[in-house]
Amino acid sequence: MFSHTINADVKLRLLEIRHADELFRLADQNRVYLREWLPWVDSTTASVQTEGYIRSSLKAFSENNGFSAGIFYRGSMAGCIGLHAIDWANRQTSIGYWLAANYRGMGIMTSACRALIDYIFYDLSLNRVEIRAAALNAKSRAIPERMKFRNEGTVRQAQWLNGHYIDLVIYAMLKEDWTSDIVQSG
Amino acid sequence: MFSHTINADVKLRLLEIRHADELFRLADQNRVYLREWLPWVDSTTASVQTEGYIRSSLKAFSENNGFSAGIFYRGSMAGCIGLHAIDWANRQTSIGYWLAANYRGMGIMTSACRALIDYIFYDLSLNRVEIRAAALNAKSRAIPERMKFRNEGTVRQAQWLNGHYIDLVIYAMLKEDWTSDIVQSG
Amino acid sequence: MFSHTINADVKLRLLEIRHADELFRLADQNRVYLREWLPWVDSTTASVQTEGYIRSSLKAFSENNGFSAGIFYRGSMAGCIGLHAIDWANRQTSIGYWLAANYRGMGIMTSACRALIDYIFYDLSLNRVEIRAAALNAKSRAIPERMKFRNEGTVRQAQWLNGHYIDLVIYAMLKEDWTSDIVQSG
Amino acid sequence: MFSHTINADVKLRLLEIRHADELFRLADQNRVYLREWLPWVDSTTASVQTEGYIRSSLKAFSENNGFSAGIFYRGSMAGCIGLHAIDWANRQTSIGYWLAANYRGMGIMTSACRALIDYIFYDLSLNRVEIRAAALNAKSRAIPERMKFRNEGTVRQAQWLNGHYIDLVIYAMLKEDWTSDIVQSG
Amino acid sequence: MFSHTINADVKLRLLEIRHADELFRLADQNRVYLREWLPWVDSTTASVQTEGYIRSSLKAFSENNGFSAGIFYRGSMAGCIGLHAIDWANRQTSIGYWLAANYRGMGIMTSACRALIDYIFYDLSLNRVEIRAAALNAKSRAIPERMKFRNEGTVRQAQWLNGHYIDLVIYAMLKEDWTSDIVQSG
Amino acid sequence: MFSHTINADVKLRLLEIRHADELFRLADQNRVYLREWLPWVDSTTASVQTEGYIRSSLKAFSENNGFSAGIFYRGSMAGCIGLHAIDWANRQTSIGYWLAANYRGMGIMTSACRALIDYIFYDLSLNRVEIRAAALNAKSRAIPERMKFRNEGTVRQAQWLNGHYIDLVIYAMLKEDWTSDIVQSG
Repeated sequence: MFSHTINADVKLRLLEIRHADELFRLADQNRVYLREWLPWVDSTTASVQTEGYIRSSLKAFSENNGFSAGIFYRGSMAGCIGLHAIDWANRQTSIGYWLAANYRGMGIMTSACRALIDYIFYDLSLNRVEIRAAALNAKSRAIPERMKFRNEGTVRQAQWLNGHYIDLVIYAMLKEDWTSDIVQSG
Repeated sequence: MFSHTINADVKLRLLEIRHADELFRLADQNRVYLREWLPWVDSTTASVQTEGYIRSSLKAFSENNGFSAGIFYRGSMAGCIGLHAIDWANRQTSIGYWLAANYRGMGIMTSACRALIDYIFYDLSLNRVEIRAAALNAKSRAIPERMKFRNEGTVRQAQWLNGHYIDLVIYAMLKEDWTSDIVQSG
Repeated sequence: MFSHTINADVKLRLLEIRHADELFRLADQNRVYLREWLPWVDSTTASVQTEGYIRSSLKAFSENNGFSAGIFYRGSMAGCIGLHAIDWANRQTSIGYWLAANYRGMGIMTSACRALIDYIFYDLSLNRVEIRAAALNAKSRAIPERMKFRNEGTVRQAQWLNGHYIDLVIYAMLKEDWTSDIVQSG
Repeated sequence: MFSHTINADVKLRLLEIRHADELFRLADQNRVYLREWLPWVDSTTASVQTEGYIRSSLKAFSENNGFSAGIFYRGSMAGCIGLHAIDWANRQTSIGYWLAANYRGMGIMTSACRALIDYIFYDLSLNRVEIRAAALNAKSRAIPERMKFRNEGTVRQAQWLNGHYIDLVIYAMLKEDWTSDIVQSG
Repeated sequence: MFSHTINADVKLRLLEIRHADELFRLADQNRVYLREWLPWVDSTTASVQTEGYIRSSLKAFSENNGFSAGIFYRGSMAGCIGLHAIDWANRQTSIGYWLAANYRGMGIMTSACRALIDYIFYDLSLNRVEIRAAALNAKSRAIPERMKFRNEGTVRQAQWLNGHYIDLVIYAMLKEDWTSDIVQSG
Repeated sequence: MFSHTINADVKLRLLEIRHADELFRLADQNRVYLREWLPWVDSTTASVQTEGYIRSSLKAFSENNGFSAGIFYRGSMAGCIGLHAIDWANRQTSIGYWLAANYRGMGIMTSACRALIDYIFYDLSLNRVEIRAAALNAKSRAIPERMKFRNEGTVRQAQWLNGHYIDLVIYAMLKEDWTSDIVQSG
């Protein structure tokens, strides 16, 4: 029921149990494409696992510790975006996301991220947000770079992905450096 | 972050921890007015209790067992609406709500209820929804009556309210009888 | 070990784990007869499920939130009676029961109910007790009617029973209206 | 509600939350007398602690792991008897009890124990039951001795009691050695 | 990582998850020999059960309620020793142990026990420690006897072992009677 | 009881509840010195908080998810070292540590770290370990630098420390790059 409108075409919906089938189907149809950079794809082989993922995301949300939202483009689920665990003591969090292949190149993810970052800094009053992208995943890295996130370094062999370790680049934005959509539209 | 737009003026927002202060303040300012029909008002004397209420509502939401939303009128919190525990075996639930005094008589609650009922029947695929109103609370009873809920009976002394028992009228709507806003606007 | 003597022939025993086999057998032998009005019969196919039911009933009892008792007639288990969740804030509860076919028509259930209601009003100090019976189940409805419970209304499609919804009649007794066995025998 | 009749005068009742006040009062009135051999007396200073004790006993009962019953003499609470944790792997348990001062010397405790032991051997199908009594508490030791329990040894400094350690005598009865009341009355 | 050195050859290591395979293998290779006196041998048929045992031992350790350590002889696992639940109210605990066949007769277990008892009395400040040995297991009984534990009695049919009950002898040592290795070496 | 010997003077002991007083006292005596870089110092004002910290560290240890050890120099507690949460999916962890003022400059921490890293790579079979040090804390940074950890970048405003945010430098060591003490001494 609950959503966040990004623009005329794009909406985020807080994932509920009832979205499990649609979310699994989307991941399943993009399996070959997604598994290149996402470690959970190969082991997600049934809708019931997706439901488990949604349950644990909702539990995190109920504990003020992040959430997962579906990205909807003209009413169809196109991908997923969310906040990982929130470090309230240090007022920081990190963003994760993925998009189905045929929704890329339309600016969907960047605008979704911008909305999330406004929420992070202005509603949750956090101070810092990270995006970690695989060092060799140029498309994923383009998103924080386009939003002027700072590249703070590369953590080596930080993720196990389908049989080998990959390096991750840490991108971060501080509240004091953020130029909001909201301010722009003000 | 997550909301449901009812119309140009009215929005429902899923209550998060950060809404606790605003929600408590609204209840506190309407204390005399609200306590006439709501049993929790007298014992809610600090924002931390409201936060506890929001936490347990979010927990219910994460377990697919109801939720609480704030009703916002032109950006200000005006009241609360939600689903109590969901009986999945029998596919039914019930709606509860309250509105601050100065937002009454504008059709806010009826349109919020209609949106919720659409969600109940079409998104959650439930079959039956109840609204229980105090037998002597004419304003509260007007809402289900306006939406053509059936009066199924009066349960006597069903609620302890500030020192005495009151009777509650059970109103119910079945899916097969519901005329949706969505259908109307279709 | 713990029982409540109704009369020379009838006893209630708080169900313990060790009663699981006997209770399952009784339900299993009355399967065709019981499934007409009880939704759990078809899905109860092994003693271990009955044990799970007893465990959860004992847990409710340990939390002051209802219980289940076996009805014993001349030492043999004849059926089941219990209190569903207790609403302490509003001091009310509801009674559920079933009896094997060959023990019907002997007044067993009415006397068991009367004993339970005495306990509800005089030991637990509750104020209101409900019995919900299927609208078309004349035998079950006869029990609250015989005890002068008030018919407060019919909740439509309130229970999913083997593939269709059925209506339930709400019967209720208030403490102020109860004529006790205990008082009668005093 | 649930009780076990020992004889015309004596009944055991499974302790429920509602017995907390009566049980606390009894212990409180016998404080000086009871503290000589019971370690919990000095630290039990309010009814809410007794309620906590009953709650944990009910939880044990719901987990098939012992229980506590009130001993009632002609309708008045006279003491307490129960089973400590049940060792199902080895099919054994132990009995604990206490009696208010003015109910002593009437055979109440011995008959209560005999009933409990019948339950232990014939309903729970356990194989062994222990009673541990303070080595210097002649009255408490008389009970297992009267029932022909075997003295298996003295465990030294086994209990901390109001500032010093005391020795406990282990008495035990095996199922194969038990002469039941039930058999006697048969 | 964490160990306790007994002497040049013998070390105790707090069991971690990663020891599960080695511990299971040791028990598995000594299956025939160990099952004579240990009830868990027959039902332990896979390493995952041993891991479960280590997990629950670590949980007990984290709750200040006992632990399990591997006994290592010249770097190889030779057996197991540990503290069962700690009774803090009465400041007592008990020791359990077993050794693989080819490590017997070298004094390993006695020196491991002596180290543990020093820890029990001087680090944990307990007052009493028990060792329970099967009445017919002469080798196991020799260990507490060699350390001058007092034989306090025999509890009959106290353990179910592969189809029959066995008697256990209770050996106990009080702090006031303990002659420590540490003191001796002082 | 359980320890890891680093050299003739230095030992690590897995922290148990009974170490709470000694650990609190050490932190308390070094309060002014430690608070410069450790966020928990100001809010740790009683031994019971230190006990809570030890409990949660033991719980993590029991779940195979890190631990805390006391560093002992010639028998006296000198500081603390441990593993934060273990990321088993990606086989990595991070090390945290602190040392009381008068134990600095003796190489204690570097040798403790080296022992821990051997454990991480060879016993736990992890692949990567991080040390995060405040960018302005030269002494703390010297430790990973001395061990040839790679500086992978600086995460800005990553920690809230007594009223302001500080930057942290990420140092990391991969298993393939590690030159062990053990190998050296081999």
